[in-house]
Amino acid sequence: MSRTLSPARERAQLPIGIFDSGVGGLTVLRAIATRLPAEQLLYLGDTARLPYGTKSAASVARYALQAAAHLVERGIKMLVVACNTASAVAMPALAAEFAPLPVIGVVEAGAEAAVRASRSGHIAVLATESTVRGGAYERAIRARRADARVFSQACSLFVALVEEGWTQGPLVEAVAREYLQPLLAEKTCDGLDCLVLGCTHFPLLSGTIRQVAGAEVTLVDSGETVAQAIADTLAQQLLLRAPGLRGAHRFLATDDAARFARVGSRFLGAEIALTDVEQVDL
Amino acid sequence: MSRTLSPARERAQLPIGIFDSGVGGLTVLRAIATRLPAEQLLYLGDTARLPYGTKSAASVARYALQAAAHLVERGIKMLVVACNTASAVAMPALAAEFAPLPVIGVVEAGAEAAVRASRSGHIAVLATESTVRGGAYERAIRARRADARVFSQACSLFVALVEEGWTQGPLVEAVAREYLQPLLAEKTCDGLDCLVLGCTHFPLLSGTIRQVAGAEVTLVDSGETVAQAIADTLAQQLLLRAPGLRGAHRFLATDDAARFARVGSRFLGAEIALTDVEQVDL
Repeated sequence: MSRTLSPARERAQLPIGIFDSGVGGLTVLRAIATRLPAEQLLYLGDTARLPYGTKSAASVARYALQAAAHLVERGIKMLVVACNTASAVAMPALAAEFAPLPVIGVVEAGAEAAVRASRSGHIAVLATESTVRGGAYERAIRARRADARVFSQACSLFVALVEEGWTQGPLVEAVAREYLQPLLAEKTCDGLDCLVLGCTHFPLLSGTIRQVAGAEVTLVDSGETVAQAIADTLAQQLLLRAPGLRGAHRFLATDDAARFARVGSRFLGAEIALTDVEQVDL
Repeated sequence: MSRTLSPARERAQLPIGIFDSGVGGLTVLRAIATRLPAEQLLYLGDTARLPYGTKSAASVARYALQAAAHLVERGIKMLVVACNTASAVAMPALAAEFAPLPVIGVVEAGAEAAVRASRSGHIAVLATESTVRGGAYERAIRARRADARVFSQACSLFVALVEEGWTQGPLVEAVAREYLQPLLAEKTCDGLDCLVLGCTHFPLLSGTIRQVAGAEVTLVDSGETVAQAIADTLAQQLLLRAPGLRGAHRFLATDDAARFARVGSRFLGAEIALTDVEQVDL
């Protein structure tokens, strides 16, 4: 469906809509808030249906369209798909459905950063099962560097570890070694010099992942790259708020608000007040 | 809502409806099929919305009612709630909604088996976060033995391990030790002699759990107890099929059928043909 937009100076006051399957996208929100403190941010976590990472592409695309529609109804000036799985399978559908609203996804941003960070062009992507199966990172990286070699590894247990609050120690190292060893050992990965954290949960494990991967491998966290892409797009479209302002952050969750606030605080790295969280039905 | 039922001899030919949040309940289906090979079994896995274990009680109850309604519409003679989380929060609502259809849940069956297995009355329940938070096992065990001491431990990572296919080895042992050590060390757990596997995924880890817990602790898997309860109820109500028959098994999943067949085969311990799986929308 196509929409007409209100004038830019009115639209500039609207929040940036950010959506994710759960609380992981709060690592992206944090990067956006750091880069653009004046902006209002409206975050929707589809906690009732998480995780997206083990669901089919068709289900994930349907959920993403519903979540995005809810944010659009509330009024946003831009949509950020903070969920790698949704970004990998639903970006074209979202862009078509909500045009001319600008839509930015973490996969494109991560691919961009990886190509800039890698000298050898041998890049590994750690992600959920769905993201790996969909091959979106591989396509996005190759579109930017045709001779890139992209290796993908599904790391489902990383999500569970982070949600359990286990982000370091021997057990986390053992899991990281289990997933990374094939990538680091395989002859085909010779010259691997860049690891993309292709799931918003994974930055919380970056200490351990860095330690197992070794110092010669650069880790790419797409949060910061997304924040930069957002800043560029808003500036081009004259949609930035005045830099002196301080933007409010509001949170929507499709499951229990108290659990969202509690677990989410860990991902945000700051306390989320229960009064800032609203439970919604999609 | 109240329903009138067709005569018992017609109803006896209907399948037993079994529902779970995903594929874990197939360990229960297997126990039922072993005990009652003549029965037709219709299994519904709500794979599009799994896991239930980290969702709120209200969401889980709503999902359970939708799943049960779908099975009832297709025609079943009995409803088995194979999901511990749903069984813990939704049994009264399910029984009321679908009366006079008999409804049997894994929590009651597991509590019954635990009380029979434990001499000391010191019983630990390993389950998902929601099941532990709801306290249903504790209530069900105390209703059967008032002086029982019940300890509960949420083991979210066990679910992820089993779904990844990692069911033994040092990593699984390390996770099991992390969860069990507080139970085995605490003075309050003195005399602990029974561990209830309060999630249908956990029987696949029983080798490792048994090894970490030690030989003096009995493991209770509610699958077999549920199968016995079903056999008793069907016999009482004259709803058993003739013993010479061989029952067909059909599977419904709310997400991708191919993934259900693939992952489900591991839980069932036998191949699930893709032609026996139908994707449904709840």
